[in-house]
Amino acid sequence: MKINRNYQNLEESYLFSTIAGKVAAFQKEHPEADVIRMGIGDVTLPLCEKAADAFARAAKEQGQEKTFHGYGPEQGYEFLREAIREYYAGFGVRVKAGDIFVSDGAKSDLGNILDLFDADNTVLIPDPVYPVYLDTNVMAGRRIWFLDANASNGFLPMPPEGQEADLIYLCSPNNPTGAVYDRAQLKEWVDFANRQGAVILFDAAYESFIDGGAFPRSIYEIEGAETCAIEFCSLSKLASFTGTRCGYTVVPEALCREGMSLRKMWLRRQTTKFNGVSYPVQRAAQAALLPEGMAQCRAHLEVYRESARVITETLSAIGIWHIGGIHSPYVWMQCPHGMTSWDFFADLLEKTGVVGTPGSGFGRNGEGYFRLTAFGRPDATREAMERIRRAYGNAE
Amino acid sequence: MKINRNYQNLEESYLFSTIAGKVAAFQKEHPEADVIRMGIGDVTLPLCEKAADAFARAAKEQGQEKTFHGYGPEQGYEFLREAIREYYAGFGVRVKAGDIFVSDGAKSDLGNILDLFDADNTVLIPDPVYPVYLDTNVMAGRRIWFLDANASNGFLPMPPEGQEADLIYLCSPNNPTGAVYDRAQLKEWVDFANRQGAVILFDAAYESFIDGGAFPRSIYEIEGAETCAIEFCSLSKLASFTGTRCGYTVVPEALCREGMSLRKMWLRRQTTKFNGVSYPVQRAAQAALLPEGMAQCRAHLEVYRESARVITETLSAIGIWHIGGIHSPYVWMQCPHGMTSWDFFADLLEKTGVVGTPGSGFGRNGEGYFRLTAFGRPDATREAMERIRRAYGNAE
Repeated sequence: MKINRNYQNLEESYLFSTIAGKVAAFQKEHPEADVIRMGIGDVTLPLCEKAADAFARAAKEQGQEKTFHGYGPEQGYEFLREAIREYYAGFGVRVKAGDIFVSDGAKSDLGNILDLFDADNTVLIPDPVYPVYLDTNVMAGRRIWFLDANASNGFLPMPPEGQEADLIYLCSPNNPTGAVYDRAQLKEWVDFANRQGAVILFDAAYESFIDGGAFPRSIYEIEGAETCAIEFCSLSKLASFTGTRCGYTVVPEALCREGMSLRKMWLRRQTTKFNGVSYPVQRAAQAALLPEGMAQCRAHLEVYRESARVITETLSAIGIWHIGGIHSPYVWMQCPHGMTSWDFFADLLEKTGVVGTPGSGFGRNGEGYFRLTAFGRPDATREAMERIRRAYGNAE
Repeated sequence: MKINRNYQNLEESYLFSTIAGKVAAFQKEHPEADVIRMGIGDVTLPLCEKAADAFARAAKEQGQEKTFHGYGPEQGYEFLREAIREYYAGFGVRVKAGDIFVSDGAKSDLGNILDLFDADNTVLIPDPVYPVYLDTNVMAGRRIWFLDANASNGFLPMPPEGQEADLIYLCSPNNPTGAVYDRAQLKEWVDFANRQGAVILFDAAYESFIDGGAFPRSIYEIEGAETCAIEFCSLSKLASFTGTRCGYTVVPEALCREGMSLRKMWLRRQTTKFNGVSYPVQRAAQAALLPEGMAQCRAHLEVYRESARVITETLSAIGIWHIGGIHSPYVWMQCPHGMTSWDFFADLLEKTGVVGTPGSGFGRNGEGYFRLTAFGRPDATREAMERIRRAYGNAE
């Protein structure tokens, strides 16, 4: 019996448990302190009314013999794949319903998609970035090449010419930096991938925060992407589905490698190792994506956008360098006074009671930076930024 | 870029699409025929009232800011893991809540668990059996050794002494044969696995059909199983969750290989590639497992058990050899007149309008056998068996 020894190469991730521990210690020492959490990547607004109603209605259907739904299609019900197709069409992107695969979330698909690829591949991963890209490839023993994201490239690394590349992770709008690739930049990536025969794994989980047409919401807005890119998306941030669980992955029919259709391989993977998403969850997702539900979702997104504005305007007013927060719920700020990420974490908590996420937790290049999120309650966010203004107003 | 070429070694599975095609052709030729489907492995009775109510209530909670649940624990909410622990305790098995992992279903876990093991392992797979065990291992390129299940061993293969074995699949009650291992037989398997350092992947998806104490419902009823077995179970058949999606996997703390805790590896796998089960689905599952819900589930199981009795009694009355149907929703019958599985499929459809599943679809040793399921509506099952009695009553 041989276990998968690659697991021994995983670094233990203590980021969020370390944060929780430090906050608990602080609260014990300062029981009177009003702690405001701006570190979380979870939403605080609920499902929109249309989605919650459809969800409860379909749950009741499951209790009646005449309306009961048993095993559904592994790829997702036609009604939801059609709604997703329409959602894409709403911002001008044509995606075939047959290329859409409904799942319980982007995180599952981002991990499971790697089944389709050999361990003997080179993977390009931005640094800093969502830790799942790295860990899932370490688990499979693939070669990793980090794409340095830093202030000099606006935290948007571009193709490293001459570098071998088989799988390329892009996350735009980015977690944790909030940086967003523009059309010309993504075109460079698509051309690079097509030249190399690489596959781009495009994480579009935050696409709904993009406001206006200058920045692509989907990799398929870029010519040539259908032959080199798989797109992952989620209703988590778009429609508050973090605890309801529904996402989708697009694998275009035109995407082949070594003579095999990746769409066909993914279908085989999903029909073998997955049994579809809960029927009532799919009904809730459909309701969120239809026009009335979508209008309600947009109102929620506007609340987060306003919070992001409050964050960025405060940081600008006190002269702290930052990016993100415009087409993104994440604001990526430089730690004042040249502090390390963890020093600033402690300093901020001590001085203001505000909790954020140390940038170094997302990769080597995150050191000296800090992530704030706009997902908190608006009044709390406003209060937190007022405290930060008072504490660091003379920072620079 | 190298794809996972093991996918090229997968055999295309046409079993259920071939059946659908043949049934459609028959219906076109005989538009008046009243076709009865006894091939499906899906349930027909709905969620019990308690589960459906809890499901709808929690769905509504997701629509209110005060009761909204965002990201939940990847391993499942404590309230559900406690309910599962109690469920096990109800038939005398002690399982720790911390060793229980809630998921969207046994099929997902049966596929995903293989992440923990190297490709360089030998896998023992019964033949015939649920095709997922074979396909998931072909995808990873592991060596396969088939365990012949046939009439001479009651379709219950025993450990092949001298054979190298790293992973061992056992499914009891079995799909497709309905055969059930007794305590002494499972003890032999557990001892074999512990001697070899192998891991048993025990699929208990049909445990709720076991009636009475002679047959173990869990591998953990067997002494020594905590150091060699992972158990997969599901609410699909127990509580009509086929379309609602919830299952669980038990990885005991004592199970280690090559110095690594498999429980810890699985936790890392799930926290990295999974984001937990929908909160309302977990509430529905909890309600199904609590005493009032469980009483309702048991009433549903009794309906299927009665149908299984009708099937087996009819086959016995007309002298057709069969097993299963006692502690199982599946009845495994020998095709009359020495017909092949597909010949009998055609003959049965032509003579009676009844659809079943050819045994050869589950493996080489399934040839000459046929699977009927007790999940259909009771009146339809009664009618189907009456037709079979008339058509094959003088079979032997």
